Amino acid sequence: MTAKDSLTIAWSPSSFGQADAAPFRLLEAAGVEVRPNPFGRRLTADEAIEHLQGVDGLIAGLEPLDARVLASAPQLKAIARVGIGVDNIDHAAAAEHGIAVSNTPDPPAESVAELTITAALALLRGLLPANNALHRGEWAKAISPGLRGTTVLLVGFGRIGQAVHRRLEAFDAEVLVSDPAVEDGGESGVEFVNLDEGLARAAVVSLHAGGRERILGEREFGLLREGAVLLNSARGELMDEKALVDALDDGSVAGAWLDVFVDEPYSGPLCDYPQVLLTPHVGTYTLACRREMETLATLNVLRDLGVELDG
Amino acid sequence: MTAKDSLTIAWSPSSFGQADAAPFRLLEAAGVEVRPNPFGRRLTADEAIEHLQGVDGLIAGLEPLDARVLASAPQLKAIARVGIGVDNIDHAAAAEHGIAVSNTPDPPAESVAELTITAALALLRGLLPANNALHRGEWAKAISPGLRGTTVLLVGFGRIGQAVHRRLEAFDAEVLVSDPAVEDGGESGVEFVNLDEGLARAAVVSLHAGGRERILGEREFGLLREGAVLLNSARGELMDEKALVDALDDGSVAGAWLDVFVDEPYSGPLCDYPQVLLTPHVGTYTLACRREMETLATLNVLRDLGVELDG
Repeated sequence: MTAKDSLTIAWSPSSFGQADAAPFRLLEAAGVEVRPNPFGRRLTADEAIEHLQGVDGLIAGLEPLDARVLASAPQLKAIARVGIGVDNIDHAAAAEHGIAVSNTPDPPAESVAELTITAALALLRGLLPANNALHRGEWAKAISPGLRGTTVLLVGFGRIGQAVHRRLEAFDAEVLVSDPAVEDGGESGVEFVNLDEGLARAAVVSLHAGGRERILGEREFGLLREGAVLLNSARGELMDEKALVDALDDGSVAGAWLDVFVDEPYSGPLCDYPQVLLTPHVGTYTLACRREMETLATLNVLRDLGVELDG
Repeated sequence: MTAKDSLTIAWSPSSFGQADAAPFRLLEAAGVEVRPNPFGRRLTADEAIEHLQGVDGLIAGLEPLDARVLASAPQLKAIARVGIGVDNIDHAAAAEHGIAVSNTPDPPAESVAELTITAALALLRGLLPANNALHRGEWAKAISPGLRGTTVLLVGFGRIGQAVHRRLEAFDAEVLVSDPAVEDGGESGVEFVNLDEGLARAAVVSLHAGGRERILGEREFGLLREGAVLLNSARGELMDEKALVDALDDGSVAGAWLDVFVDEPYSGPLCDYPQVLLTPHVGTYTLACRREMETLATLNVLRDLGVELDG
């Protein structure tokens, strides 16, 4: 270990280290000075300026790290965001001041993929109707479609789509992928299709595309297989909520899961459909995701400050 | 194809061929005479005798195939049970009459494993509380344990335990196995432990043992990790329901899923616990399981009658 006594690392996420103490142990092993968030909540710009005085590296949340804040922290050389989004950081200003910026995109992808499969299985095995009936004293045996052998279309094959695919394989689902940015599946054994063909063939359609451009609008709902199940863990804008409500009303869509909504917190008409699973944007809300993101951000900031850890 | 015009194959499960027409296509391709169940329900012994007159092979359900029935069907040479259990067949009488008996243990294992992971994920991701809250208009974000990195003890490592293990690996769970009949994991990479050690280490305990001998009694509940989650898809007798209720009351067990009960249909005290998922013994109730069991039973009866299918 190369202990650099002069280095100070601050963190700003108020929940940092609460899921697991591993990041604290890393910082201790690195022999750096640490500075916790003294406010216990998201920092304002002025609080961030105060928090960053004399700080070499920041383990960052979503506090505003704009040009003014970064100009006020001349010692700062590394920002390691705990999470994916880095819209809160002025990247031009960071580059100008020689501040390295990193993020942790992999742990959230695993956690979002896990919740996607959770929802798919619950819908395809009729878990909630069976459980609710039995809690009312009704023994309602019913055959469900199941995931095994079921055709699933993944719209988008980035980190999350691939993490979903890896899990689907263990359930022997038939996976189709539509992603204009990926030409073929290489060694993944995935069948690539265009969106329209995928919508016509899949029993389950799961959205894992980036951006906010609508993917499932009225036209696309018209291409779906009768009784399709739709999953959205990406962004509310990707699926036309009105078209979904209409498809639920006429029965052409059998069920859906949404973790993301155009307006959050959500309180719209989908709340009235028992065949729609709704979760409050908690794709990344797991202990594993927190632990792994925080550990990774800590390793990132230490790396960007040139601190070497033994072993 | 070797068409044997004299062969007749009967089936007795009333739902045969309803999940998928593949078994009918196989029988047609084999050029055999077929005889559907004319009663549309489980046959009595007398009805089975009538149904089996002039029949060479039976695709069987749970109708009584006792010594009297088998003695009344001199032409019968093969019984292919759609499912696992063959307690309805008098095996000594079948052997005496030269009747081959087969079953289809693999498809149910995959389906039970699928439902086990469904329940584990729903519990570990807090799916039902989040969904129920949002359907009431409450946006209740909460961090859940998740399955990734979570230690899961599989008690029993036969077909179902192994099918569960294959899926758990795709979620990067830490798997422990306790099974006195299996000495080590071979190439599976599984860590074998004795039951007491496994109970003390696992966050999730899932029962996949055969037989009806109690595995989780009062003593074993005392060994569990605080906040453990219990899963039972095997047999109701394996888990002491009274001990489970006590552990739920004192909070030492955080959640559970039961698909099997000592008395079915179940209507006991567990119905009052929202943190307990209850399903009405539907582990094998999927389209894939039906389709695969029926196809396999059809192939089994054709094989045992010496009918060869081309290609």
